[in-house]
Amino acid sequence: MPQNIYDNLNFFERYSSLPRSKHGLDGAPEWPVLQSLLPTIRNLRVLDLGCGFGWFCRWAMAAGAQSVVGVDLSKNMLKRAKEATNDKSIEYVLADLDTIDFDAASYDLVFSSLTLHYVKDLPALFNKVFRSLAPKGRFVFSVEHPIILAPTDPSWKTLDSGIAVWPLDRYLDEGPRVVNWLVDGVVKEHRTVATYVNLLNLSGHSICRVEEWGPSLEQVQENPEWAVERNRPYFLLVAAQSNQECDD
Amino acid sequence: MPQNIYDNLNFFERYSSLPRSKHGLDGAPEWPVLQSLLPTIRNLRVLDLGCGFGWFCRWAMAAGAQSVVGVDLSKNMLKRAKEATNDKSIEYVLADLDTIDFDAASYDLVFSSLTLHYVKDLPALFNKVFRSLAPKGRFVFSVEHPIILAPTDPSWKTLDSGIAVWPLDRYLDEGPRVVNWLVDGVVKEHRTVATYVNLLNLSGHSICRVEEWGPSLEQVQENPEWAVERNRPYFLLVAAQSNQECDD
Repeated sequence: MPQNIYDNLNFFERYSSLPRSKHGLDGAPEWPVLQSLLPTIRNLRVLDLGCGFGWFCRWAMAAGAQSVVGVDLSKNMLKRAKEATNDKSIEYVLADLDTIDFDAASYDLVFSSLTLHYVKDLPALFNKVFRSLAPKGRFVFSVEHPIILAPTDPSWKTLDSGIAVWPLDRYLDEGPRVVNWLVDGVVKEHRTVATYVNLLNLSGHSICRVEEWGPSLEQVQENPEWAVERNRPYFLLVAAQSNQECDD
Repeated sequence: MPQNIYDNLNFFERYSSLPRSKHGLDGAPEWPVLQSLLPTIRNLRVLDLGCGFGWFCRWAMAAGAQSVVGVDLSKNMLKRAKEATNDKSIEYVLADLDTIDFDAASYDLVFSSLTLHYVKDLPALFNKVFRSLAPKGRFVFSVEHPIILAPTDPSWKTLDSGIAVWPLDRYLDEGPRVVNWLVDGVVKEHRTVATYVNLLNLSGHSICRVEEWGPSLEQVQENPEWAVERNRPYFLLVAAQSNQECDD
């Protein structure tokens, strides 16, 4: 059983007040890029791994999905997700991504936002995702970028020259990282970009697109305090596919 | 015409004394991993982009290649490469990778070591490489890792805690970087990992494997002073293929 920080009451209250929790997809600055990795949703069977409050599940349903299954480890989050919709085409499942399995060839889109860095056995999950995808099925996910998760001391440092730099170390040493995020002692799994790509390939997926997300120049213009965020990528977004040729 | 630093005499003399210049592939610590990305060489038609002193060309010929073409911008380097072999199956071509073109479907392996970060128009070159590959042809290259090339001040910093960190900034701002390497004012092109992967995809390649190279734990044991090099990857190595399914 992995750490289930989302059912820690103190964490849950703080998490619930984040922009992405209150405003959903529109509160997530990486959403426009993540959305650009998705196929046309109409008539797709969608699986959301780490669905949280169900924002993406409801968005997919509104975008014309045939059915949506949202999986999460947190009772608190699924309770809220269920309260937010009466739509019977959305099914919420309480399960641990390290032990869950899926029906074969049952989904056209497997989606996961900022969840896979909590999964211990990613090779196993990628194999199960690949098996669950229908022909031409797509797997789209975001994780914290390894550059964010690697360091011993993940906070901006200012050089004598005045430049704010991200103090990278331990990048090549994969494994758990204990970070203080909202509460102390949150455990995430650090893996390199190469590992994400190679595990996808090994599990049979074709890589369609990789994005290293930071705010766009337009977003920085609207939020000048974000300028420093272009010094290193914050999220890693990946689109992969079950067949050999990537569609656009 | 790009900067041709390798025909700068001062640079050339210093470059010539590097371990990888004197000892060839065995003097390059990333060679074992790079070699693991290569197909079996026997009977392949090989193209080496940025062949330098021709170490890889001669290695490929000795490994049973059918023919080898080495391309480089530097007269100095090609002169030495030609002096080192009598093998008529190796052809050396003086050309600029930003303007050269290749015959269609003519190579089974296109190889490039630490050269593509000098190329200005990488989308054009990737298109030409894809066109030059025979069915099941493979494209294997190494570049300086974007984490190495991005920073304003690319040198280790020591935090108050005593940890050596790599001061990352400007990662998302692609473009030329002027670095002082052997001589002052060497110009290299900074591109993100995502850009390398996406440009390969856009030009038709399938991504087979990505490696972010730093010394292995075994290499660190042999050379304890390399331990700090595991704090960030030094080289990006990529294997791609012209057909849709990657062979092993």
